[in-house]
Amino acid sequence: MLGHESAGVIVEVGPDVKNLAVGDRVALEPGVSCNNCRTCRSGRYNLCSDMRFAATPPYDGTLATYYPLPEECCVKLPAHVSLREGALVEPLSVAVHVMRLAGDVQGKDIVIFGAGPIGLLCSAVAEAFGAKSVVIVDIVESRLEFAREYSGAKSFRMSREAPETNAESLCSTFGFDEGADVVVDATGAEPCIETGVHALKRGGTFIQAGLGSPRVNLSIGQICDKEAILKGSFRYGPGDYQLAVSLVDSGRVSLKRLVTHEFSFEEAEKAFVNVSERNGIKTLILGPDVDAGFED
Amino acid sequence: MLGHESAGVIVEVGPDVKNLAVGDRVALEPGVSCNNCRTCRSGRYNLCSDMRFAATPPYDGTLATYYPLPEECCVKLPAHVSLREGALVEPLSVAVHVMRLAGDVQGKDIVIFGAGPIGLLCSAVAEAFGAKSVVIVDIVESRLEFAREYSGAKSFRMSREAPETNAESLCSTFGFDEGADVVVDATGAEPCIETGVHALKRGGTFIQAGLGSPRVNLSIGQICDKEAILKGSFRYGPGDYQLAVSLVDSGRVSLKRLVTHEFSFEEAEKAFVNVSERNGIKTLILGPDVDAGFED
Amino acid sequence: MLGHESAGVIVEVGPDVKNLAVGDRVALEPGVSCNNCRTCRSGRYNLCSDMRFAATPPYDGTLATYYPLPEECCVKLPAHVSLREGALVEPLSVAVHVMRLAGDVQGKDIVIFGAGPIGLLCSAVAEAFGAKSVVIVDIVESRLEFAREYSGAKSFRMSREAPETNAESLCSTFGFDEGADVVVDATGAEPCIETGVHALKRGGTFIQAGLGSPRVNLSIGQICDKEAILKGSFRYGPGDYQLAVSLVDSGRVSLKRLVTHEFSFEEAEKAFVNVSERNGIKTLILGPDVDAGFED
Amino acid sequence: MLGHESAGVIVEVGPDVKNLAVGDRVALEPGVSCNNCRTCRSGRYNLCSDMRFAATPPYDGTLATYYPLPEECCVKLPAHVSLREGALVEPLSVAVHVMRLAGDVQGKDIVIFGAGPIGLLCSAVAEAFGAKSVVIVDIVESRLEFAREYSGAKSFRMSREAPETNAESLCSTFGFDEGADVVVDATGAEPCIETGVHALKRGGTFIQAGLGSPRVNLSIGQICDKEAILKGSFRYGPGDYQLAVSLVDSGRVSLKRLVTHEFSFEEAEKAFVNVSERNGIKTLILGPDVDAGFED
Repeated sequence: MLGHESAGVIVEVGPDVKNLAVGDRVALEPGVSCNNCRTCRSGRYNLCSDMRFAATPPYDGTLATYYPLPEECCVKLPAHVSLREGALVEPLSVAVHVMRLAGDVQGKDIVIFGAGPIGLLCSAVAEAFGAKSVVIVDIVESRLEFAREYSGAKSFRMSREAPETNAESLCSTFGFDEGADVVVDATGAEPCIETGVHALKRGGTFIQAGLGSPRVNLSIGQICDKEAILKGSFRYGPGDYQLAVSLVDSGRVSLKRLVTHEFSFEEAEKAFVNVSERNGIKTLILGPDVDAGFED
Repeated sequence: MLGHESAGVIVEVGPDVKNLAVGDRVALEPGVSCNNCRTCRSGRYNLCSDMRFAATPPYDGTLATYYPLPEECCVKLPAHVSLREGALVEPLSVAVHVMRLAGDVQGKDIVIFGAGPIGLLCSAVAEAFGAKSVVIVDIVESRLEFAREYSGAKSFRMSREAPETNAESLCSTFGFDEGADVVVDATGAEPCIETGVHALKRGGTFIQAGLGSPRVNLSIGQICDKEAILKGSFRYGPGDYQLAVSLVDSGRVSLKRLVTHEFSFEEAEKAFVNVSERNGIKTLILGPDVDAGFED
Repeated sequence: MLGHESAGVIVEVGPDVKNLAVGDRVALEPGVSCNNCRTCRSGRYNLCSDMRFAATPPYDGTLATYYPLPEECCVKLPAHVSLREGALVEPLSVAVHVMRLAGDVQGKDIVIFGAGPIGLLCSAVAEAFGAKSVVIVDIVESRLEFAREYSGAKSFRMSREAPETNAESLCSTFGFDEGADVVVDATGAEPCIETGVHALKRGGTFIQAGLGSPRVNLSIGQICDKEAILKGSFRYGPGDYQLAVSLVDSGRVSLKRLVTHEFSFEEAEKAFVNVSERNGIKTLILGPDVDAGFED
Repeated sequence: MLGHESAGVIVEVGPDVKNLAVGDRVALEPGVSCNNCRTCRSGRYNLCSDMRFAATPPYDGTLATYYPLPEECCVKLPAHVSLREGALVEPLSVAVHVMRLAGDVQGKDIVIFGAGPIGLLCSAVAEAFGAKSVVIVDIVESRLEFAREYSGAKSFRMSREAPETNAESLCSTFGFDEGADVVVDATGAEPCIETGVHALKRGGTFIQAGLGSPRVNLSIGQICDKEAILKGSFRYGPGDYQLAVSLVDSGRVSLKRLVTHEFSFEEAEKAFVNVSERNGIKTLILGPDVDAGFED
């Protein structure tokens, strides 16, 4: 069974459940960690070696009429956050996790590679977290256009030139005299990663958000000379889902505008075809009660 | 003029000098930062873009009878720390900086690649900082033998096998079931870096201490899956020289045992020949007053 | 000579000045640190023991036609930030420093005691930094009214009851079931500090921003049971002025709306009378060139 | 039932236990947290509001022949760590937690108030963590004598003078020209806390480890002027027990030398009398199998 970006309505609760009731509308955090190992107890449950993650074999995904989940993985949606938005709390939590790893971004210059859903959400979160400038980089102009409209980010179209050249061009275009404070790569593509490393300021931070090539050629000499930090980001951890919901509730991040297509549960197959054809940004499959209890 | 690892005796002080007097024995911190730019003022003077670093053109090195240096770059040696040791405070500060970047190492398992001076000093500092296990890795058995005797570190001889294989073998040898908490690379060689990344625990930290290949093929996928952190280390910064001196003074780190050869100032040329022949670990060039004021 | 909140136009630059030119409009950071001591070099120049701070005897204040200042203390104002706003970058930097000490406030509940200039600015900065709720506390309703209009913060009027009672009432009013994540005291008054400590969540952070009573009776047992952190905040440090200017430039924080009175340089005495009568929030003394070079 | 400092031998394991077997010798972490709430999942299980802590009503203590405990609260003892030492891992973990809150103490000057068990253990842990100087403060000379022999700390006997006077005297005695980097209070007594605040360096950290007076008169003005941090410490959290065991195993901290009295389980009452008479430092009650499986 597929599916790990989803939201739903509670239909039944177990005897030990404390803070949820039948009828509650919740976003589903799809990773169930053991909560008892040293990794979990140290505040890094996303790295639990006993993680059961929806749609990661052998575990079933969430594309089902009913789905059992422990209480701590059900994050209540406020009255004005819809189930549609609730389903997209998952990718937003990925972006929240990435931008938290970036540390304090107040007043800083951020460059994000990749104008797909994760890159877009990272740009929105960076804005919400108070970045001074957010530049989103891609090779496809139409995606950059969407990005500019979506989050107010500036955009840069990468050319086929060398990483050093692209990085110089990017930095001079936006007046990053000493480079960017933070670079996020949401592509996993070597040319982006290399350009990002070259665009980084001394003492800057690079977050690898996108899974792509398992191995890349990296300018490790630049990392040393700049005393830069490179961090891998893996899913989401303590408080990320809650902060994501709060960002949507307060209007700081829009999830609605990422939804470009919707299909009913019965038409689910068409949804998959649509995604495989790379149409739009986000495609939703809607259950029958999608609007229940939602106050627009 | 060459030279950036040195110590000496103060022969003259300027009118604004507050805490130094003629006759003081000092270690020389060879990088003079501007102290006024935003980078310096933020506590990262090692990244100052106006750095004047000894023996880095166009700046002269410290291999001279007299050498002018601002007060803040002269770090007083306690009575029981010799000028010989003082000269080696420089590489020790490199190691201190590396191990500070590694964060809290109390009770943790550390792997260090490279049994040269920086690797050896990192192993000694890791022990001093309270690491649970320190394993030093090299391909030359005689260097590992020296390492074991020097710092009490365990040793692992890397084979010519794949990084994954070497990493598994290393971890199983020392009972690092989930991998090492911290990996330091003091070689700059791709096979070491790759082995290190594979040996790393989930959530672990990798410090790149050695300058080597400017570019390497890196398992970025591992960095993401493990949510690991990779940091470049560049020289030394606030408090590193002072902590290095304190580690020597308290006997927590031995610098004496790294000195394998000594030459007089007049024989300086022989010293360079000796180093170029890769003899021993550290070769000193001694001035006439090398023992002045030192209480053994 | 009085004065430490000011902005001006550069009329002359020394030979070593790199990034400023005659005619530049700048905010004046009034503390000149030595930049060479260990404290300065470690990134905490606000704690320099050789600090020369404007209007702190024996140093003259900035209420003068001409005022000499090192380059690093002159922070350029963007075209759309006025000198009026530039003068208030000083208290805004105090608030920026306070809220940075509070750590990541994204999605968190913040309570601020005191609706004077510093409390108001802290509330604006907390909002800009992404706090979920900001509650400002005072005993004077008119000040709370100003606060609500100024930053969108919620407000709570403290009663003359016991700290525990006020704290419970505050937390239940705003649904802080487990208490506030961050409490800022900008009053220095014991009843506020005690109420704040009681309103704090387990693991929360308390920032003491206001200078008031040198000694207070404090529930240290609460600090322990909650494993809370209490931090003193002192002026501003690396990057605070720059971030303050950036917050004004981007419109995230309004300084204009804090200016309730203005006097010409010639009428400076009236300004002091006005302040001593506790009229309004901020009173400005304007020089003849106050609008020079400003693009509204 | 009393008791929360204890160790024992596993006699039975449940079906889901993975890493423990009958016969294993373990230290007992006496606090059972829920592991599922946001506080636990964020890595701060010591602050869990559902904590069931041994001997804290309504929960029974560990002074029993058999005691049920979840796997994650049983920390295995290495072959060379005795059950006697295992019982004292509890107070050692308190000290580990305190010193971890103090941050990096490498090369720093530490002052600890109170030469009771927690103060003594903090001094030993501070030494193990690489502090430059550790000064332990008390009013009873015999306790200071024990302290000097126990951990190699220096000692200072506090007089009945004003906090400022005691602090000045302490700092000048040990050459802390600018004050201590870290102060730990393990007494909870107002004169100690006040002296500690005055002895603190600018930018220093104060850890409140001892529960004593629920309220004290505190020089909050000093906390502000020094931009100091005051942290409450509550029990122990992720990794503290494991690090404590590792410190004993490596010989960095001695627990044996704190045991001044021992009684058999049958004589338990005498043990309580002994403690109530304030004899010695630590009194143990020994079960019949106290030496089982221990390799001296």
